[in-house]
Amino acid sequence: MPRAPTQAFSMSDFSSCAQAIAEHARELAARGWMPATSGNFSMRVDDGHAAITISGRDKSRLGPDDVMLVDLQGRPVGSTARPSAETGLHTQLYRLWPQVNAVLHTHSRAQSVASRLFAREGVVRLAGWELQKAITGFHSHDSVLEIPVFPNTQHMPELESRVAAWLDDGRPLHAYLIDGHGLYAWGRDMAEARRHLEALDFLLGCELDLRRLST
Amino acid sequence: MPRAPTQAFSMSDFSSCAQAIAEHARELAARGWMPATSGNFSMRVDDGHAAITISGRDKSRLGPDDVMLVDLQGRPVGSTARPSAETGLHTQLYRLWPQVNAVLHTHSRAQSVASRLFAREGVVRLAGWELQKAITGFHSHDSVLEIPVFPNTQHMPELESRVAAWLDDGRPLHAYLIDGHGLYAWGRDMAEARRHLEALDFLLGCELDLRRLST
Amino acid sequence: MPRAPTQAFSMSDFSSCAQAIAEHARELAARGWMPATSGNFSMRVDDGHAAITISGRDKSRLGPDDVMLVDLQGRPVGSTARPSAETGLHTQLYRLWPQVNAVLHTHSRAQSVASRLFAREGVVRLAGWELQKAITGFHSHDSVLEIPVFPNTQHMPELESRVAAWLDDGRPLHAYLIDGHGLYAWGRDMAEARRHLEALDFLLGCELDLRRLST
Amino acid sequence: MPRAPTQAFSMSDFSSCAQAIAEHARELAARGWMPATSGNFSMRVDDGHAAITISGRDKSRLGPDDVMLVDLQGRPVGSTARPSAETGLHTQLYRLWPQVNAVLHTHSRAQSVASRLFAREGVVRLAGWELQKAITGFHSHDSVLEIPVFPNTQHMPELESRVAAWLDDGRPLHAYLIDGHGLYAWGRDMAEARRHLEALDFLLGCELDLRRLST
Repeated sequence: MPRAPTQAFSMSDFSSCAQAIAEHARELAARGWMPATSGNFSMRVDDGHAAITISGRDKSRLGPDDVMLVDLQGRPVGSTARPSAETGLHTQLYRLWPQVNAVLHTHSRAQSVASRLFAREGVVRLAGWELQKAITGFHSHDSVLEIPVFPNTQHMPELESRVAAWLDDGRPLHAYLIDGHGLYAWGRDMAEARRHLEALDFLLGCELDLRRLST
Repeated sequence: MPRAPTQAFSMSDFSSCAQAIAEHARELAARGWMPATSGNFSMRVDDGHAAITISGRDKSRLGPDDVMLVDLQGRPVGSTARPSAETGLHTQLYRLWPQVNAVLHTHSRAQSVASRLFAREGVVRLAGWELQKAITGFHSHDSVLEIPVFPNTQHMPELESRVAAWLDDGRPLHAYLIDGHGLYAWGRDMAEARRHLEALDFLLGCELDLRRLST
Repeated sequence: MPRAPTQAFSMSDFSSCAQAIAEHARELAARGWMPATSGNFSMRVDDGHAAITISGRDKSRLGPDDVMLVDLQGRPVGSTARPSAETGLHTQLYRLWPQVNAVLHTHSRAQSVASRLFAREGVVRLAGWELQKAITGFHSHDSVLEIPVFPNTQHMPELESRVAAWLDDGRPLHAYLIDGHGLYAWGRDMAEARRHLEALDFLLGCELDLRRLST
Repeated sequence: MPRAPTQAFSMSDFSSCAQAIAEHARELAARGWMPATSGNFSMRVDDGHAAITISGRDKSRLGPDDVMLVDLQGRPVGSTARPSAETGLHTQLYRLWPQVNAVLHTHSRAQSVASRLFAREGVVRLAGWELQKAITGFHSHDSVLEIPVFPNTQHMPELESRVAAWLDDGRPLHAYLIDGHGLYAWGRDMAEARRHLEALDFLLGCELDLRRLST
């Protein structure tokens, strides 16, 4: 039996999140960033709930019915569907930062390849690119933007503690890669999350190109 | 004179297969995976028949009329059209496994280049990629997915016996490449076949990129 | 004053050629094969005339009004517009071979880069690719397909004599590259010309990728 | 309070510029040349005014309302919106050359990578490409087209003086790159500016490919 909501939530807020998630997922799937049903998107609905893509759906055909409600521990609310296996990574970000309202996880080729290439160093260091300014808080190309690369695991709590450990070290966290996997980016709203995602995908692709050309 | 069906078949089952084949072919042709009329798609219609693309048709403009019926020996049924030259490879898979209901063969650049590059080793070994989980039966990036690369020939029975020999060795077979040619992937339904195809195309592209960057 | 037609021609034949040219040009421009107004397409209208794109038009927005009539010496017929500077290369092919009814010249990145890379050898040799079969007359990957690379010049008669000299040597000619420029391909009809163009663009791209990976 | 226009201007001229800017921005954003709200486009409205994209708008969804009026010192006219941070680079070109009526600045991957790769030399030298003829004034592939690469800075007057210094040296200027950033191109009208931009993006991509292949 589906878990009944323990807190009230607004169906219309959920619906507009589901609409926005479906629209942005179809757009990014059309670029090949979510191949083979991969990737997952979410938005915070309210203090206690998020809307997130149901596991295994084809992102290039995603509709609002492919989005479900979860609480901030990642448990389904009012639905028997199975949320994305990585739901815990989304809800961790909502619990950590009240100002985060959208989380996007994609698998573009540049993201996947960069995650493998920089896995040993554990971090991608971006410097000297104008587009670093697309990340909120960055005002110049003359800065260093660090994106950690965490080892992959099928055990989500392990990834959650990698994120927590990075933050405990007092290091800024704007997005992260998982080795052999893809990118997590977020923002205060869908527009900011998508701007962060697009900028980082672009910059990872540029870094890979520069590497190919510099050797 | 067209060969009359020796077994009854449902025209409406054939029609829905033909529709699905045409739609998916146009979508993948738009990505450049079926250049110059290459590639061929099929679906099992029933125990004794499959729907398959007619030879030489432009996949970017494919309609249901570009799909024909064959029996599971690959002989045309109720049609004077010529089925794809590689029909035998499709029907072999339907004869081998009753659970296979869709077979997709495409020619993307990553597939063709990878097939040449790995031809000498005779296999592509994929490991450490999250997207290996898109292949049914794989539950972790921490696994090895082997895709054999068979030598090309214009003589289909030779290719069929390569497939049979691989299976006789007791090796799992999820898809295969043909040298200088392209990829064969399949599934229980069109959605699974396409998920397998997309995942493998993506992973072959990533492997090529990593090779370029690692030297 | 526009040159009056010395031979009768069918306006409706011209119109259907102009329609087909505009449609295929827009499709290939959308792939980035005709950047910055480059490229030109033609079709034979009858024994004495061809339809060809007017010089300098944006191929991504091409309409039938951007196509004009020329005689087989490349002179405008019934129009004051200026035909493409390379019209002479199109009409040479129509004069050489009565069975050629469509000529396509594009500038994709793979074509331009391959033309530079293989300019010194003067030829690209394609072997071992299944897609060689897309060229009429080729029935196996086990063949060699030679595409000459002619030096570029702004003087069209010089290029025409390069083509003539290649043929005088008794060498088969299926298409040709011009150094730093692009590809010329042709066929009995638009469908065949386009199949040839797509196959060659794909194979040139694959050859470039293999080179990058093999060193 | 918005600055009142000190000179009369035609609202309908502004509107048609805003329409053209929005349409071309959406087209080029769809190619990935303006990721993460980057890039900015402008058109001269009259002797004293230009229409320019408002700062931070998503170029893939750009409408005429995302375009504002500025004077040729880059100050907003009749609007409280903030013009692009790089407005000064656009208006410098309008002040320098009365025949320039459109300026386009984009951030494609080829542009950004080339700007980094050629930053030390301070210039990209293009030679031997047919497409150099797409730049007004060039009539042969047998020419050299120099595109300067200026160091990046967040201080626009510094960039403006780099441009001025290049011109003071008596060197022709057809477009310029900024290191780690993107390309500026312009023309007598939107069609010419876009032709210049497309040709240069294509040629930078070709140069990068040749470099990868020649080593």
